[in-house]
Amino acid sequence: MTATAAWAATAADAPIAPLTIERRALRPEDVDIAITHCGVCHSDLHTARNDWGRTTYPIVPGHEIVGIVRAVGSAVGRVRVGDRVAVGCMVDSCLACDACEDHQEQYCHKGMTGTYNSKDRQDGSPTYGGYSSGIVVRQEFVLTVPDALDMARAAPLLCAGITSYSPLKNWNVGPGSRVGVIGLGGLGHMGVKLAKGLGAEVTMITTSPAKGADAKALGADHVLISTDRDAMKGAARSFDFLLDTIPVPHELPPYLALLDRQGTLCLVGAIDMLPSFHSGLLLGGQKAVAGSGIGGIAETQEMLDFCAEKGILPDVEVIRMDEINHAYERMEKADVKYRFVIDMATIGG
Amino acid sequence: MTATAAWAATAADAPIAPLTIERRALRPEDVDIAITHCGVCHSDLHTARNDWGRTTYPIVPGHEIVGIVRAVGSAVGRVRVGDRVAVGCMVDSCLACDACEDHQEQYCHKGMTGTYNSKDRQDGSPTYGGYSSGIVVRQEFVLTVPDALDMARAAPLLCAGITSYSPLKNWNVGPGSRVGVIGLGGLGHMGVKLAKGLGAEVTMITTSPAKGADAKALGADHVLISTDRDAMKGAARSFDFLLDTIPVPHELPPYLALLDRQGTLCLVGAIDMLPSFHSGLLLGGQKAVAGSGIGGIAETQEMLDFCAEKGILPDVEVIRMDEINHAYERMEKADVKYRFVIDMATIGG
Repeated sequence: MTATAAWAATAADAPIAPLTIERRALRPEDVDIAITHCGVCHSDLHTARNDWGRTTYPIVPGHEIVGIVRAVGSAVGRVRVGDRVAVGCMVDSCLACDACEDHQEQYCHKGMTGTYNSKDRQDGSPTYGGYSSGIVVRQEFVLTVPDALDMARAAPLLCAGITSYSPLKNWNVGPGSRVGVIGLGGLGHMGVKLAKGLGAEVTMITTSPAKGADAKALGADHVLISTDRDAMKGAARSFDFLLDTIPVPHELPPYLALLDRQGTLCLVGAIDMLPSFHSGLLLGGQKAVAGSGIGGIAETQEMLDFCAEKGILPDVEVIRMDEINHAYERMEKADVKYRFVIDMATIGG
Repeated sequence: MTATAAWAATAADAPIAPLTIERRALRPEDVDIAITHCGVCHSDLHTARNDWGRTTYPIVPGHEIVGIVRAVGSAVGRVRVGDRVAVGCMVDSCLACDACEDHQEQYCHKGMTGTYNSKDRQDGSPTYGGYSSGIVVRQEFVLTVPDALDMARAAPLLCAGITSYSPLKNWNVGPGSRVGVIGLGGLGHMGVKLAKGLGAEVTMITTSPAKGADAKALGADHVLISTDRDAMKGAARSFDFLLDTIPVPHELPPYLALLDRQGTLCLVGAIDMLPSFHSGLLLGGQKAVAGSGIGGIAETQEMLDFCAEKGILPDVEVIRMDEINHAYERMEKADVKYRFVIDMATIGG
């Protein structure tokens, strides 16, 4: 066990504050990573505050982790000391079920082990996330960060990036695809960049003209203001795929009307009860409502390599560790373009 | 105008009874069909009784129509007098929008013209369905019935058949596909036969062990009793595609749990508000809830040809025209295997 500097929440109403945690001694297949940067995801905030009622305290958030390998277990062959590496939303899975064998560990039949607020599969110890100077992760869940990617900016790829990339790939988005990205936050801004990178024609669908302009600066071809009834009517049946990044429950019918025949709306933001809607909106065009959750490890590596090749990186605001509580306040007001990333050199301790 | 024998409902609480209607004089592109048989669809009953609140009386139901061409307009080249032909749920569309140009006239942007309870696009006259000795339909909406298909048994292919076939094709069901058909009625029994014909491994999912046995007789490989919790749990994640033919609103979560990753549940029966469910059931495996409505004319012809090639026909109970009200009563009790077909030689008048 190694005493490690971290920042944690100790109760639902407690701020994120310094806490020394224990990281496990290296097992043969473990990689010990000195964390250089950690992205700040909305899930961090929700979990820290127990918004989903499943938090075990103390909680060290952070699952958009990049860093440098500082030690490896005796059986590690995948990475070496000094390598630029990354860890996303999961640190283990059964590695034996159909989903794991298909490299979709996020859908492990026995449940993936989350990077935080989960339990180690071997000794039951709590998992602690990336608001920390270091993390120990088995090699199968360690990604390689291509040299072309800036470490600070690469961090949000590990959650926001892969969460957008996996559905775009699964629903065959490419040249000729008419893609709408609904909502411009951490996920939405990656959705725009990745869909463009895949060759699609991309429309930002937002309530806010200002966000529309921002999306164009990010590469969106068009903007559709969802509160503009005439514009929405004019855009009926004009999309093959909608990446719906709205983080709260919302009415689907206005968006389903935008889908052309055989189109799919994929939810990636709202993990909640879906409001009831009329099935005729699906039957009238072989349309589908789908969902997608992060991506498998192999696909995450593919996404990192794709971003390196295409020069795609999140837009981030780098903060000091002690600015995290203020960052949460700003996130609640959607006052961030588009992801906070903690510079872990500032963790102190 | 030609006075034509038909049976119609004249009010929501009136039985189906004889009524002479006027069929239009042939336009150049029209085909005049002597109806030999007409299938009895649940939509007929719902429309006759105004269950959906959109019925204009008098209503002549029937959109599973087969017959013989007895006259053609001057511009008709597609069929000849004496041909075995069929008409399904639609008799016209704009033929100019993207959907029509893609041969998906059922999703016409301007709305297809229904075979009954609709208005002719040219003169606004009401459309009357197949509970009639004859019908006049523009040639683009007339199908050819292959010689290998029995006329009486072919009738339900025009709605129940294509409604099952189109989604199976759209979601690429074929050899290796693990398909579940939910519900064994007119649609479900065609779903079993067509999915088997396409080479899939087919499971009937039903509340009723008796229906399960019937489905096996129809060709289903397996039966899953949806009220058997252990069986449902054991079948988790074991389907690629679910054809959901349940005709009323129902809870989706038990069925979504049956889908494997990237699987789709397609609604074809319940045209109603979908009960709310948790999006996590979709996100946890890139699953989708979709819908599908009948099929285009070209696809309907493809389905008829496929059924002829594979020897696939609905199981029907042929009735006399004057048995229609009793047939409706039996349909309400699901007392039919699996479709009533009216022998139009019995229409009288």
